[in-house]
Amino acid sequence: MNLILLSGGSGKRLWPLSNDIRSKQFIRMLSDENGGLESMLGRVYRQITQVDPEARITIATGKKQVSLIKNQLGDKVGVCVEPCRRDTFPAVCLAAAYLRDRQGVKEDEIVVVCPVDPYVETSYFEALKEMAEMARTGDANLYLMGIEPTYPSEKYGYIIPVSQEPVSSVDTFREKPDIATARRYIAQGALWNGGVFAFRLGYLLEKAHEQMDFTDYRDLYDRYGEQKKISFDYALAEREKEIRVLRYKGQWRDLGTWNTFCEAMAGRTLGRAAMDGTCENTHVVNELNIPILCMGCKDMVIAASNDGILISDKEQSSYIKPFVEQIEQQVMYAEKSWGSFTVLDVQEDSLTIKIVLLPGHALHYHSHEHRDEVWTVMGGQGKAVIDGVERSLSPGDVVSMPAGCRHTVSACSELKIIEVQLGRNISVEDKQKYKLPFSE
Amino acid sequence: MNLILLSGGSGKRLWPLSNDIRSKQFIRMLSDENGGLESMLGRVYRQITQVDPEARITIATGKKQVSLIKNQLGDKVGVCVEPCRRDTFPAVCLAAAYLRDRQGVKEDEIVVVCPVDPYVETSYFEALKEMAEMARTGDANLYLMGIEPTYPSEKYGYIIPVSQEPVSSVDTFREKPDIATARRYIAQGALWNGGVFAFRLGYLLEKAHEQMDFTDYRDLYDRYGEQKKISFDYALAEREKEIRVLRYKGQWRDLGTWNTFCEAMAGRTLGRAAMDGTCENTHVVNELNIPILCMGCKDMVIAASNDGILISDKEQSSYIKPFVEQIEQQVMYAEKSWGSFTVLDVQEDSLTIKIVLLPGHALHYHSHEHRDEVWTVMGGQGKAVIDGVERSLSPGDVVSMPAGCRHTVSACSELKIIEVQLGRNISVEDKQKYKLPFSE
Repeated sequence: MNLILLSGGSGKRLWPLSNDIRSKQFIRMLSDENGGLESMLGRVYRQITQVDPEARITIATGKKQVSLIKNQLGDKVGVCVEPCRRDTFPAVCLAAAYLRDRQGVKEDEIVVVCPVDPYVETSYFEALKEMAEMARTGDANLYLMGIEPTYPSEKYGYIIPVSQEPVSSVDTFREKPDIATARRYIAQGALWNGGVFAFRLGYLLEKAHEQMDFTDYRDLYDRYGEQKKISFDYALAEREKEIRVLRYKGQWRDLGTWNTFCEAMAGRTLGRAAMDGTCENTHVVNELNIPILCMGCKDMVIAASNDGILISDKEQSSYIKPFVEQIEQQVMYAEKSWGSFTVLDVQEDSLTIKIVLLPGHALHYHSHEHRDEVWTVMGGQGKAVIDGVERSLSPGDVVSMPAGCRHTVSACSELKIIEVQLGRNISVEDKQKYKLPFSE
Repeated sequence: MNLILLSGGSGKRLWPLSNDIRSKQFIRMLSDENGGLESMLGRVYRQITQVDPEARITIATGKKQVSLIKNQLGDKVGVCVEPCRRDTFPAVCLAAAYLRDRQGVKEDEIVVVCPVDPYVETSYFEALKEMAEMARTGDANLYLMGIEPTYPSEKYGYIIPVSQEPVSSVDTFREKPDIATARRYIAQGALWNGGVFAFRLGYLLEKAHEQMDFTDYRDLYDRYGEQKKISFDYALAEREKEIRVLRYKGQWRDLGTWNTFCEAMAGRTLGRAAMDGTCENTHVVNELNIPILCMGCKDMVIAASNDGILISDKEQSSYIKPFVEQIEQQVMYAEKSWGSFTVLDVQEDSLTIKIVLLPGHALHYHSHEHRDEVWTVMGGQGKAVIDGVERSLSPGDVVSMPAGCRHTVSACSELKIIEVQLGRNISVEDKQKYKLPFSE
């Protein structure tokens, strides 16, 4: 099975654990099968490979998520990077071109598109496999999954099938309705549109060329910014006459808000947290190294990271987005492909951060125009290059880099460094990159 | 007026803002008269000097509080330090001996003893002045303040006066009762025992010598550990026949729990905090540089510091003590006479702290046996002495101190330093102090 997983979203709704860099699908808060913790991405990957160990998985995503995907899944998946954001139709087309031109997938092979973050049972992925098989043998152009609704939700689009058979033609698509309309749809036998599609690769590329001007993957990548923002449903599904919907009846949840996320959490508390005996239906996720004590909390969710601390009634937490948008907070913690950084202290004319560099990784060779930097090695072994001169690094070693000094560091073992940045108006923009003066 | 302010308590009830080092009386969360913030100690000091600009104030306290008192009040008050904790009678006797032997107070002068942390109107200190005057001219040995109760509290001791006159003899003292008993006492005209006493210095010292074996202040200080733990009420007030109680009718509150403390707070939020429109009767104190967002919180108190984060129903917060005792957390922030330190990062074999050294202050000249240290100067100017060699310090300067290296630093202007400590089992005990090899 060829699978394209669409991984989007800045995930403000799960603030402060999700931020512009870390979307909800990467947060490790679900129970894996061995009593450990896994992310939505990790869970979905595990479930797919349980159903189809041979599945070829490609994640279509933006630049910011590449490091996190690599950190969580390594090279086990392909990553098709959108140079900028352009809704789902261009994203699927780019991924389709990537599959053909970079992964060697044949045009008569079947591709299944699926969101990266459904919280489902394994049977969901069995259904995907079935859809792929149906697309291979059937005579329709497009197959999609219709999820049997469990309540009249305002959050999903609806599909009205022609019949109540397991596989049916589609009568119409409906946008997200209000609750009364949703009730009416459901009475008519409507299904939720789960954003899952199966098609022959050649079919999709043909449709792509009809609507977008490009030659191949590289060309589409280069001209991606010119493409119109349009959803897959609107550009294709709603116009396709030869379309079939497969009913899926099984657990399917969108863990998009704290309220729903808590239900799937590995336990009532993650991280340093204690509750007194009068707390009820309360969940705590604490990524800080500061203990949390809850007393008399009812129906609450508490989530703490270096980005912020949320203390919310569970119902109320669905309305978080506008409040988070008002909070100005520099990113205090970020996972990168090379490791991570944590801001420890912010002063008017200095910034102190902790850098963890993974073995085998290195920073870019770079300099800063407006700030001096000092490294103190806390742990691990590494090598620095300072103005072209290489030196080894061990715990206790100190490197002073005045403004203009070119520097980089690579880790032999996991390297932990305290970096003190000194200057006014310290900015991530103040960075000039260079090629290393020698190659290793 | 000679005033002894008793400053005790480790203040676990206002965790995480109070800890073993910072008791509740030092937390700056009350409105001062200029729209700024002041502590209970600052407020009481201000009120006393408004009523009596000539008041001679001595604070009786333990070692741990001396730095904080000096930071908040400088040399405007005397500090009588108890070498160890011994309840209120020995503490008052030590302070009395200190007044006579160190401050030159005559034995026929009047001394008033008062807790350091009542939340009161200025009229309370007018009443103290009146008590002192009454003690000077009256014929009783001991005068105490009886506060007219506003509700049947289980938290206070009660005084049953003989009459309902403004000044009365005392019938009996009663320990903290249950609510039903408290109601009965109040029906009998009982008053709360506010822990305020006035007496002639000579009288108190005579009583002290009757119960304790000592010659003078120095001797009592040296033998303080041998003294019996006994309260002032039990040792003296309940045994004294020539005693009078003064009625006080005015605002008098004990801000000993979050529930009561919130009522006196300068605003609904202190520090970085936002609330949505559905929060009700909720207070937030945030000492962290991490934003807090509250949604749908009702009747809650939220308090965050580097020591911990409390999220509690206001009523429930009174029962905090046993929970806090279970939380193991090293002190992450401490104010010292010389400035402050903040723990920024804890690793198995390193510890990173921020040191702020106030102008004119210096650390002890010291070394560590089992750890190396590296300083990076973030801001300010200072001088270091490293193994006997003096050098000046400016932002960006780095000092590496291997184990055994003797070092100190003094601040010319406010000096901010990042200190990375490197070694296993890093402990505050690993410190050897030395005299500086030269005097300045």
